[in-house]
Amino acid sequence: MQTTQVHIRDKFWEDYSELVRRTVIPYQWEALNDRIAGAEPSYAIRNFRIAAGLEQGEFGGWVFQDSDLYKWLEAVAYSLRNQPDPELENIADGAIDLIGQAQHDNGYINTYFTIKEPGNEWTNLYEAHELYCAGHLIEAAVAYAEATGKHKIMDIACRFADLIDTLFGTGENQKRAYCGHQEIELALVKLYHATGEERYLNLSRYFIDERGSSPSYFTQEWERRGRTGIWSQGSPNLEMYQSHLPVREQTAAVGHSVRAVYMYTAMADLARLTNDASLRAACERLWANTTRKQMYITGGVGATHLGEAFTFDYDLPNDAVYAETCASIGLIFWARRMLRLEAKSEYADVMERALYNNVLGSMSKDGKHFFYVNPLEVWPEASKRNPDKHHVKPIRQKWFGCSCCPPNVARLLSSLNDYIYDVSAEGNTVHVHLYIGSTVQFTSLEGQEVTLSQRSELPWNGKVDFNVSLAPGNANGAAFTLALRVPNWFQSGQPVLRVNGVVQEVTVNNGYAHINRLWSEGDTLEWLLPLETKLIEAHPQIRADAGKAAIQRGPLVYCVEEADNRAPLASLYIAETAHLTEREAPHLLGGCVVVEGDGLVADGSAWPEDQPYQPIRKTRNPVRFTAIPYYLWGNREPGEMSVWLRN
Amino acid sequence: MQTTQVHIRDKFWEDYSELVRRTVIPYQWEALNDRIAGAEPSYAIRNFRIAAGLEQGEFGGWVFQDSDLYKWLEAVAYSLRNQPDPELENIADGAIDLIGQAQHDNGYINTYFTIKEPGNEWTNLYEAHELYCAGHLIEAAVAYAEATGKHKIMDIACRFADLIDTLFGTGENQKRAYCGHQEIELALVKLYHATGEERYLNLSRYFIDERGSSPSYFTQEWERRGRTGIWSQGSPNLEMYQSHLPVREQTAAVGHSVRAVYMYTAMADLARLTNDASLRAACERLWANTTRKQMYITGGVGATHLGEAFTFDYDLPNDAVYAETCASIGLIFWARRMLRLEAKSEYADVMERALYNNVLGSMSKDGKHFFYVNPLEVWPEASKRNPDKHHVKPIRQKWFGCSCCPPNVARLLSSLNDYIYDVSAEGNTVHVHLYIGSTVQFTSLEGQEVTLSQRSELPWNGKVDFNVSLAPGNANGAAFTLALRVPNWFQSGQPVLRVNGVVQEVTVNNGYAHINRLWSEGDTLEWLLPLETKLIEAHPQIRADAGKAAIQRGPLVYCVEEADNRAPLASLYIAETAHLTEREAPHLLGGCVVVEGDGLVADGSAWPEDQPYQPIRKTRNPVRFTAIPYYLWGNREPGEMSVWLRN
Repeated sequence: MQTTQVHIRDKFWEDYSELVRRTVIPYQWEALNDRIAGAEPSYAIRNFRIAAGLEQGEFGGWVFQDSDLYKWLEAVAYSLRNQPDPELENIADGAIDLIGQAQHDNGYINTYFTIKEPGNEWTNLYEAHELYCAGHLIEAAVAYAEATGKHKIMDIACRFADLIDTLFGTGENQKRAYCGHQEIELALVKLYHATGEERYLNLSRYFIDERGSSPSYFTQEWERRGRTGIWSQGSPNLEMYQSHLPVREQTAAVGHSVRAVYMYTAMADLARLTNDASLRAACERLWANTTRKQMYITGGVGATHLGEAFTFDYDLPNDAVYAETCASIGLIFWARRMLRLEAKSEYADVMERALYNNVLGSMSKDGKHFFYVNPLEVWPEASKRNPDKHHVKPIRQKWFGCSCCPPNVARLLSSLNDYIYDVSAEGNTVHVHLYIGSTVQFTSLEGQEVTLSQRSELPWNGKVDFNVSLAPGNANGAAFTLALRVPNWFQSGQPVLRVNGVVQEVTVNNGYAHINRLWSEGDTLEWLLPLETKLIEAHPQIRADAGKAAIQRGPLVYCVEEADNRAPLASLYIAETAHLTEREAPHLLGGCVVVEGDGLVADGSAWPEDQPYQPIRKTRNPVRFTAIPYYLWGNREPGEMSVWLRN
Repeated sequence: MQTTQVHIRDKFWEDYSELVRRTVIPYQWEALNDRIAGAEPSYAIRNFRIAAGLEQGEFGGWVFQDSDLYKWLEAVAYSLRNQPDPELENIADGAIDLIGQAQHDNGYINTYFTIKEPGNEWTNLYEAHELYCAGHLIEAAVAYAEATGKHKIMDIACRFADLIDTLFGTGENQKRAYCGHQEIELALVKLYHATGEERYLNLSRYFIDERGSSPSYFTQEWERRGRTGIWSQGSPNLEMYQSHLPVREQTAAVGHSVRAVYMYTAMADLARLTNDASLRAACERLWANTTRKQMYITGGVGATHLGEAFTFDYDLPNDAVYAETCASIGLIFWARRMLRLEAKSEYADVMERALYNNVLGSMSKDGKHFFYVNPLEVWPEASKRNPDKHHVKPIRQKWFGCSCCPPNVARLLSSLNDYIYDVSAEGNTVHVHLYIGSTVQFTSLEGQEVTLSQRSELPWNGKVDFNVSLAPGNANGAAFTLALRVPNWFQSGQPVLRVNGVVQEVTVNNGYAHINRLWSEGDTLEWLLPLETKLIEAHPQIRADAGKAAIQRGPLVYCVEEADNRAPLASLYIAETAHLTEREAPHLLGGCVVVEGDGLVADGSAWPEDQPYQPIRKTRNPVRFTAIPYYLWGNREPGEMSVWLRN
């Protein structure tokens, strides 16, 4: 396999990784230590100190609280990889020492069971998240070892993984079980990559293969516990945890959406690494269902807050939505793995859609406030006064209230360099999935060291260029194919590709424009994808969007806000001829391009005060409306917001 | 006060009262006796037998289970008043004997406390419904005594009411409390009317005046119980039970909608009987809020299933709606009392709207299936697979599953004769609120016996006529004003009024056309309100209806169903010029008038299978759509339904 090094050099994205490094990571460290005044304590560090015997006390927080520390460590690792920071590394080393002290002699680590239910380990896989937490420990370990070269956390993680490997499986004295919250499956694949140990890959495959077998492990376990649980009542909900069927028989995304996409991520890894055709077919089937029938235009998934779950095909309410931040991040994880299975642009299209809209929109410009739920339509009064919409917040919350999404955003934004390119094992093809300014270094088929530098003006301008740099003294050039994604938002014919100023013919294959040549030092490639503002409509089966249009410009979905347009936004219609124009607004929300258009607004002024219903008059007055990128919504005074407008 | 006798003679409505008499009442008696195979037992009769010492066993059903028997008795009483039935009366007498046997020596009756929590009477007014059940006993007693002339149940009820009167009030040894579920307040007013005893009126007023005083009785009681409850958790939700403020300070309908409208009903009674200006002002304020800002076009109220409650102004989602049948019935109770406060047509308009749409729609044509929730938009798959919509049923349920709404429908439809006319105390004005074929007998100012016969072709034709009949030998005629409501759906100028074939000038006052004359035997009056099919739009603040129109013809709101139109109904638009036509369909759903119109339907055929979102094409094909009266929806194969159509 190619070892490629990717560095992001892009103002738009470096602002985010710097925000993570300077604000999110230090802030969360304070939160993990219960040092944020006025915030609910995390208990995470304290739990570890109690489990390590350094402090007396009760377990605090959720049963999966340990994972917050692990996810923070993983974010730290990516940040250190991008930007060394000895002080931060020192703090992280201390946290790792503490984790080691909380580890049992047999390798087990979970502060909930160590403190609160010693002796009951592995009796409640349905709810207790032990393997889930192990997975996050493993992900942190792999990332930290890679970034720092230090192996202590790897040793801790491997000892735990080895214990798990002895306990779970089809062997005589093994438990035929799997975790209520998928996560360890994808983590074990990373551990296999990092260590080369096939048993970790096999263990991951075992968990995936075992899941959904009959009779259900979760139901049997619940019976053994005397039908009790930590929080859930009644018999296990197998569909909610994607254990209602063997994974290869699953055809539609169901249940808790984060669990689902984490599982599909591991399935895609395993399908590739074990060359498993039926698993791959399941991935492709689930991908098609998820992204064609259960995904919001913003890349959000999960239509209901009850169970934070998928519902069913084309059921995508904009106002009672869930679209959890973590679920979109998991969708990006999954898309990344699908791209490794096969370089098809639809995977990268979804990755880009979720990244630029749902995920970026989840974080405020100050890096200290987050959405868990990412609605496409907000009426602040309804969020407050209709209990069906209490979960939809009109303003981002302080991120330390519940900490599942914020560290996920941190680890994604700090590791974005892993999402831009795929260089084939032989070094003869470089796929460019995302247009993010960056450099990628790789070794070509002939053994030439190549540095490809990308400059991108996205998301504001569709102008990308690449520069080829070879090792000093290389006079022979380097032969490789550059495969550039033609985004699905670019629908204006063939994009223009110029090499050293000369327009080239390109062939598009699986959504990538291929250009194969012998590249020389200093070669430049221009790739022009002029951005056009488009009105988008949804599939007629998506009832919530019927009679409406959304505005999209390049990868960015737009929305209207009450700050720019008169409420109720429901009264706003896009005119038959919308005359959409774009305007650079350098001082608005840190700088963006706003879209303006012709609209009509229902005239409520003449409504008789005493009549809620009247024979139709359809009085509509012309208005010019203003839309801003969705990812910037909710950064001004709270008000109504809508992605879909009547038309 | 005038004693008027009203008899309904109207095919449309007699079909319903006969359905209640022949089907609903006998069926429910079987249910109350746990004799319906396959249905959940009611336990109501069994609870009374146990409380009476006739049987051993545990209490069964809800804490308010007694009220089911009382509501059944009340419906029986109205039915006997319309149509004597010795066998039914005999059964009812037996039930009354049983109630008497369950009564304590001090007058107390409540089988829950007698069986399950003896000694804990009156310790949980927030939840335990003791006064609520007493209220339904009183309503049944008043109705039964009036219908049959038998006083046994009145004696039982009065003994209980007298006990309550000694226990509750501002006196030294009295409890300053009120019920968690308002009902006794309106019942005590009826008891006052039936007995002439002012203390019942005063007790009703006491409960209304005490409600919402500070500190809250409910909170104090909860503290005394050690913060425990029968089903609710946490501290009492005062707003949910309309006890957050003194009633005179309440300005908007909040909380559980049935509790709210039952309370407002009593408030309107008390405002009139005690000439209480501030209470009347509160009623008018709450009426305006409820019916102008929180009422569906079908007369449904209550926008959320969480708490079966009101939410806030203009929040009227069509698909996540509650619009409970009982709440619309309570709204009709309230409207009836507002009409007695002041004969303004808006009260009757709402009464008619709720009756012809939400209430009639709640019952199937066979009288054995009922909706509790009356949605304005149904997607059956969402009801099944999106937990936010599990409460919205696409088909009526067997009525004995939970029995709060069905007996309410039965008692309303059997007592509809009380809702048609108001004859002034002096006999000089007859207000006609509803156009339902009927006769009303009253004594005119000069002491003449008058029988006014109404014939009506509503809801299918807007043709009403009246015939005056005087006592034999009366040659002087009778002078009185006939005040005919001009319905708010009639908006085609002045209605035509002819007396003995001659068109009369009429003056309209408070929405009633007044015609004052000396009426002679055989005088006829024709009142023509030609029905026009109209497209209706909602107030622009009602976001859920923006960009949509509903169809209304006379009092009937229409809807489209999948049985007549292609799903998804969300793809259907009313054409710019709708060309609405009406067609009699004598064999459809028992006979009705259907409305047809020109529509456009989004063409989903060319959608690329792999794209949920596409640049807009707005391909719409012409179609002729069919709408049926809303009250008839859901009587064919289950499918989508929608009241509001895009336009």
